[in-house]
Amino acid sequence: MTNGSLPRLTRAIYPGSFDPPTNGHLDVIERAARCFGELIVAVIVNPQKRDPMFSLEEREAMLSECVGHLPNVRVEHFRGLLADYVKLRESDVIVKGLRVVSDFENEMSTALMNRALAQVDTFFLMSDQKYSFVSSSIVKEVFFLGGEVDSLVPEPVLRVMAAKRTTLHSARR
Amino acid sequence: MTNGSLPRLTRAIYPGSFDPPTNGHLDVIERAARCFGELIVAVIVNPQKRDPMFSLEEREAMLSECVGHLPNVRVEHFRGLLADYVKLRESDVIVKGLRVVSDFENEMSTALMNRALAQVDTFFLMSDQKYSFVSSSIVKEVFFLGGEVDSLVPEPVLRVMAAKRTTLHSARR
Amino acid sequence: MTNGSLPRLTRAIYPGSFDPPTNGHLDVIERAARCFGELIVAVIVNPQKRDPMFSLEEREAMLSECVGHLPNVRVEHFRGLLADYVKLRESDVIVKGLRVVSDFENEMSTALMNRALAQVDTFFLMSDQKYSFVSSSIVKEVFFLGGEVDSLVPEPVLRVMAAKRTTLHSARR
Amino acid sequence: MTNGSLPRLTRAIYPGSFDPPTNGHLDVIERAARCFGELIVAVIVNPQKRDPMFSLEEREAMLSECVGHLPNVRVEHFRGLLADYVKLRESDVIVKGLRVVSDFENEMSTALMNRALAQVDTFFLMSDQKYSFVSSSIVKEVFFLGGEVDSLVPEPVLRVMAAKRTTLHSARR
Amino acid sequence: MTNGSLPRLTRAIYPGSFDPPTNGHLDVIERAARCFGELIVAVIVNPQKRDPMFSLEEREAMLSECVGHLPNVRVEHFRGLLADYVKLRESDVIVKGLRVVSDFENEMSTALMNRALAQVDTFFLMSDQKYSFVSSSIVKEVFFLGGEVDSLVPEPVLRVMAAKRTTLHSARR
Amino acid sequence: MTNGSLPRLTRAIYPGSFDPPTNGHLDVIERAARCFGELIVAVIVNPQKRDPMFSLEEREAMLSECVGHLPNVRVEHFRGLLADYVKLRESDVIVKGLRVVSDFENEMSTALMNRALAQVDTFFLMSDQKYSFVSSSIVKEVFFLGGEVDSLVPEPVLRVMAAKRTTLHSARR
Repeated sequence: MTNGSLPRLTRAIYPGSFDPPTNGHLDVIERAARCFGELIVAVIVNPQKRDPMFSLEEREAMLSECVGHLPNVRVEHFRGLLADYVKLRESDVIVKGLRVVSDFENEMSTALMNRALAQVDTFFLMSDQKYSFVSSSIVKEVFFLGGEVDSLVPEPVLRVMAAKRTTLHSARR
Repeated sequence: MTNGSLPRLTRAIYPGSFDPPTNGHLDVIERAARCFGELIVAVIVNPQKRDPMFSLEEREAMLSECVGHLPNVRVEHFRGLLADYVKLRESDVIVKGLRVVSDFENEMSTALMNRALAQVDTFFLMSDQKYSFVSSSIVKEVFFLGGEVDSLVPEPVLRVMAAKRTTLHSARR
Repeated sequence: MTNGSLPRLTRAIYPGSFDPPTNGHLDVIERAARCFGELIVAVIVNPQKRDPMFSLEEREAMLSECVGHLPNVRVEHFRGLLADYVKLRESDVIVKGLRVVSDFENEMSTALMNRALAQVDTFFLMSDQKYSFVSSSIVKEVFFLGGEVDSLVPEPVLRVMAAKRTTLHSARR
Repeated sequence: MTNGSLPRLTRAIYPGSFDPPTNGHLDVIERAARCFGELIVAVIVNPQKRDPMFSLEEREAMLSECVGHLPNVRVEHFRGLLADYVKLRESDVIVKGLRVVSDFENEMSTALMNRALAQVDTFFLMSDQKYSFVSSSIVKEVFFLGGEVDSLVPEPVLRVMAAKRTTLHSARR
Repeated sequence: MTNGSLPRLTRAIYPGSFDPPTNGHLDVIERAARCFGELIVAVIVNPQKRDPMFSLEEREAMLSECVGHLPNVRVEHFRGLLADYVKLRESDVIVKGLRVVSDFENEMSTALMNRALAQVDTFFLMSDQKYSFVSSSIVKEVFFLGGEVDSLVPEPVLRVMAAKRTTLHSARR
Repeated sequence: MTNGSLPRLTRAIYPGSFDPPTNGHLDVIERAARCFGELIVAVIVNPQKRDPMFSLEEREAMLSECVGHLPNVRVEHFRGLLADYVKLRESDVIVKGLRVVSDFENEMSTALMNRALAQVDTFFLMSDQKYSFVSSSIVKEVFFLGGEVDSLVPEPVLRVMAAKRTTLHSARR
């Protein structure tokens, strides 16, 4: 959209690994969905990150179930550069959640690079304070050390994780 | 807007003192105007901040001239709590520009308070790197110490400042 | 206490301006009271900070009412250097609340100075996330701009503030 | 301990990998031992961190020797979630050392999670400035690159490291 | 100096209010004097900062005495923009001391502005850790609250401060 | 150099992995070369970092070509501790580039350690804002995901990377 033209519904992309999606992610999705016309939750397929806990299919399925109540949100995945995917989807903005100050420090460089490569702006949004310590890696750490993650992930994710736990336990016997 | 309803054009508020507006402010306004349906640039009337360099009328006039090319942007002012003004205008989001990490630290508390008081989210947007050191107070400092501010403020602001400089010099004689 | 001697109940000092005490302050007091044998909430009398909203007497009275349910907590005030007051009270530790990262940056220098001057350590404690944006100055700002502070300060403080608002309104007529 | 009950001696846990213990760790231990009734130095057994430089037994032995002069300190280890171990030991607080601001950023999320999972508060304590650059990983880096670590680790650790160096050199021949 | 020409001795400027000079300032001066050919310690005359504790003459005299042992260091003062003074002195670099991370956040914008206005680079240098909490304002705060500043300022400054204390006490009688 | 002796040309070391050198690195080199008499760009040979994208020889060759126009700059490499190499080269200062605040947090500990081990100061210098998001790892990420790196690296590096891309594509067939 060029300056001065009539505004149309803004298309935003919310990229992430979502391994797994957390209550913090869902909170950001719901907030962003209220403010942008269309929101694409985009799972990054990163061949360099080995051994995700959840397959791409599992992550997309969990996310789709989590956002089922939000008509202007859809789930996709992409390979390669986010900047290229943003251009392909003719997206206007990238959305990122911030939990703590250091999140912003890490995201700043990426946001500047995406602006340089795809002329796209990143909008930063704070997740609810009660999720400020919830990240995918903390969820996995708690889970693997035997703790309860009920308050950290949405119900569809909880169900898949419970199934994985059963499988893990069976395997150990 | 409740979850699940059809999206309408989002109304965003960009609040600030704008004493004076800088190139950094204008950069954030142009970026936000591309992404939200309607953008209100709202000058804060703060009786506790004494001795602004520019009167409220000057600030509104300069801003209006600066955003004349952006049809979905308008300039207003408000007294009292931002949270109350946000409710009055039925605004969906607050927009804030970030230049450096410490900006975010300062804005986080305000954003959380506005969320608590008015259920409104703040979207943070980075201004162009080339404006990362430009703030209203730096502009005023350079100006009062006799330096050139041509590259720091938009043309309409430059004109008003040049007039003030002439007045200052005449007064000193 | 020298290394190697038998531990006795630790005496901690929680210093602050408390102008006014907030829910965040009370949260830190309750958490510290659980962990230290004795806790002195110490109001700093700072002649350089002009125009406090509440008099020293008001602040001590409000605090005393707020901590009435905590048998090992008492309220005092002091003039001069915190390091001198710490020595006078033979206190073992200073307690400070942290809400956000920038709080720590500001407190680090003070903590190092107090260690140098009085060989006393500062223990930092995080207040509840739901109070992470609540500070005395934000409370005063919201109050003076006509907003509700019910969720930001304890009930005894709310009562005194309500009385002040009535006085302010009468004075304006 | 519930609010209002008589205070008893506080039991604190100081968790860490201690691979190896540094002068900074020992400094934090000595400071915390002065302020809490009982201090448990707890070595985290983390099966996900591969290839520690020192075995669990070595780390516990070195720590025990380092804290021999502190009667209210004992060394243990634990597997699984810190939150579970805290509950098992009926500990009142977790102690963490801070050297620089970024330490606090990293520890904030963990502290909030432990509060959520085990209702336990984390007290942050600054190590002596002269140890502000000393971490286990810096000690290992200097050691493996052939530098002297005499001023970075306590004497018992130095002895074990010197022995390892001899072994390394023999192995290379 | 243009790229490719022969290097000459670098002239560096170390600007500051020095109200009063501290041990931290002197530490930075000594370190910078070792690395640059010529170092000008430049006292900022800032008419907007009211009520300095020490007059410009006192500050220059104390600094001159403090740097007497450093043949390539001289003390000056300037009015107006640092960028203009840098050009006047044909200085190659500005030197700034950093004590903590937040110092850098504050100095970044100023450094970028000076680069834009005077094509001059700012080199940041860490003061000794043992001075990391020492600033002019902390020195003044401790002094006015009756504390000892012996370990915080150089001997020539201490003498002037002691004289001021006597004057203050006489005045109070 | 001892205090009080005549200043000689300062020898600075700019250490890094340079895997690959970026426009940001070159910008820092050019700025430092203007301010120090002699500048050694020193490639760290780190056997613990596996799988560099470029061999040591490639990195030295690319750097040498990039700095060919700077007569007081030369390229070397070193193994082992930077502190030992600094002593070997009788270097006066270490130079490090800073892009964002978090860079400084990471570099602070290293700078303090090098001061402790080799009595050498680190001077921090900001790279141009337009390179603030450019790092070797971002360059590699963009490259491997198929993006253009023309604006991120100097021409000699671009040429080597283009050759590698051709090799990669051939290998995949």
